[in-house]
Amino acid sequence: MYALDKFHELIHQGIEDNPLIKSPNELYEPIDYILQIGGKRIRPVIVLLGTDLFDGDVKQAVKPSLAIEYFHNFSLMHDDIMDDAPLRRGKQTVHEKYNVNTAILSGDALLIKAYEALEDLEPALFKTVTKLFTKTALELCEGQQMDINFETQDDVTYDDYIQMISMKTGVLVAASLKIGALIAGASEKDADMIYNYGLNLGIAYQLKDDYLDVFGNLEHLGKKHAGDIFENKKTILYLSALEAANDKERKELLFWYGLKTDNVDKVYAIEKLFRKLNVHRTLATLIREYTNKAQAILNDIDVAEEKKGYLKELSEILIDRQG
Amino acid sequence: MYALDKFHELIHQGIEDNPLIKSPNELYEPIDYILQIGGKRIRPVIVLLGTDLFDGDVKQAVKPSLAIEYFHNFSLMHDDIMDDAPLRRGKQTVHEKYNVNTAILSGDALLIKAYEALEDLEPALFKTVTKLFTKTALELCEGQQMDINFETQDDVTYDDYIQMISMKTGVLVAASLKIGALIAGASEKDADMIYNYGLNLGIAYQLKDDYLDVFGNLEHLGKKHAGDIFENKKTILYLSALEAANDKERKELLFWYGLKTDNVDKVYAIEKLFRKLNVHRTLATLIREYTNKAQAILNDIDVAEEKKGYLKELSEILIDRQG
Repeated sequence: MYALDKFHELIHQGIEDNPLIKSPNELYEPIDYILQIGGKRIRPVIVLLGTDLFDGDVKQAVKPSLAIEYFHNFSLMHDDIMDDAPLRRGKQTVHEKYNVNTAILSGDALLIKAYEALEDLEPALFKTVTKLFTKTALELCEGQQMDINFETQDDVTYDDYIQMISMKTGVLVAASLKIGALIAGASEKDADMIYNYGLNLGIAYQLKDDYLDVFGNLEHLGKKHAGDIFENKKTILYLSALEAANDKERKELLFWYGLKTDNVDKVYAIEKLFRKLNVHRTLATLIREYTNKAQAILNDIDVAEEKKGYLKELSEILIDRQG
Repeated sequence: MYALDKFHELIHQGIEDNPLIKSPNELYEPIDYILQIGGKRIRPVIVLLGTDLFDGDVKQAVKPSLAIEYFHNFSLMHDDIMDDAPLRRGKQTVHEKYNVNTAILSGDALLIKAYEALEDLEPALFKTVTKLFTKTALELCEGQQMDINFETQDDVTYDDYIQMISMKTGVLVAASLKIGALIAGASEKDADMIYNYGLNLGIAYQLKDDYLDVFGNLEHLGKKHAGDIFENKKTILYLSALEAANDKERKELLFWYGLKTDNVDKVYAIEKLFRKLNVHRTLATLIREYTNKAQAILNDIDVAEEKKGYLKELSEILIDRQG
């Protein structure tokens, strides 16, 4: 049992206390469905960690933290349509279980519910938090668009990729912590520091996600194995393979990434190539770099060391996971 | 030239002053596209009318009024996907011009931009307006879901239908006026009265829209003629035809509304039936009733009569239009 399970319990209770089912049922049931199939609910926990770090009342942060969980689930509903993904956390995606129109409209409603979840904050804080939320939400859309662009773009660089995952994943972890900090009344400087900590941690988390997509334990994964390869996603694995490849290997890589096919031979061939080119080690090093960068920022934040324990545990959960 | 053209001019300028194009272009260009193909931009004008009615500074209302225009265009982007509509205002819909994924993601971004457009308001007003905006946005999703449900629901009543169009159209007109009033610093009572005025006017407007879908001047319509009939939408025309029909006519009506076909014979047959059953007159009466109800509320609002002139003009534009 993790020490931060107590925050998970608060979030669980918060979700119970704020039922989403109402009329018309066809709109809200799919929202309830995606929230109930659960996932780790790690993002709202992160909000509470931000509040706790700066000695705030975590109970006050529970409802606003649901905004982050709602937003995350909204983006899953719409991203899964775009990716034509059949599974999410081992269960049918919303557009598979219901239909595409439902996944669009219920997703829209869930995004709006996210804003609603912030309404308990008093006006000045409500405005500060809502602005940060809006900025972050736009960045996530931009990151998703960059991700889509990369599929047909030939000259994607390392830097492009890191920027994309910063937007797509990093800023939400960062904003979650900062919102938590703001609710605790942290100084602007502290709130910005914890934002930067979260940004680096979020990048490391996404890199780990890319790693697990190919090298992960299937049992833990709960989604299609090597989905990124099937979709020709130019993840960091692809980019570092391309860099390390000789002419023959590069040709092979480009050949497979030029095909739209569900043939598993493609995955076998690419995984073999990735291992041969030591891509898993390169990626492990990069993940460590971002994790260390995050840790260095955390070290500089002026709060009691014991308070930082939860964030170290969070970092372990996010980065050391197997699936 | 209408007197309220000066408000249109302010909105036009506001849209110019807040360019939407930025990187990544693929995300924002479709947003710019749907805003540029324009339409009447009547909803943000309505915000300004709410401000003007209560002696506020309409210039302060311009940026927040764009939230309403953005929201409206977001909902068009997503509704057009759901309805599989090829045309909007005589131009290609976003999912036709680009693709469905783009229309989903750019639509999401536009909804978020709507919230961003409210950020100039000071915190207390920002919170009041944002809450109203959120409540309204959720109601619109609920109305859209009801509309979808009606397609396969056999026992839709007049009241159900009026409730659906209240949610789908009425509340946005109502909220636009109320937001304008709040920006002007109107009393709660006045803000609620102008909300109710807008609700009734919005219902009349949607009824007119239903009327024009079938009986409208094609030249002015700018979208597929009789789209509601092709989609078996149980609009007020259908409901009042059903009520007035004898057994044979009812059978014919139910026969056609049980078919999913693009055959124009369906439209000819149903239009003939509608005219025979005097549906156009029934509907004209109903539109007048809601317009009168709105007018009665406006009469009771305690502001100078000259200030109400714009709203009378608005009512003419919304209700007396031919397409």
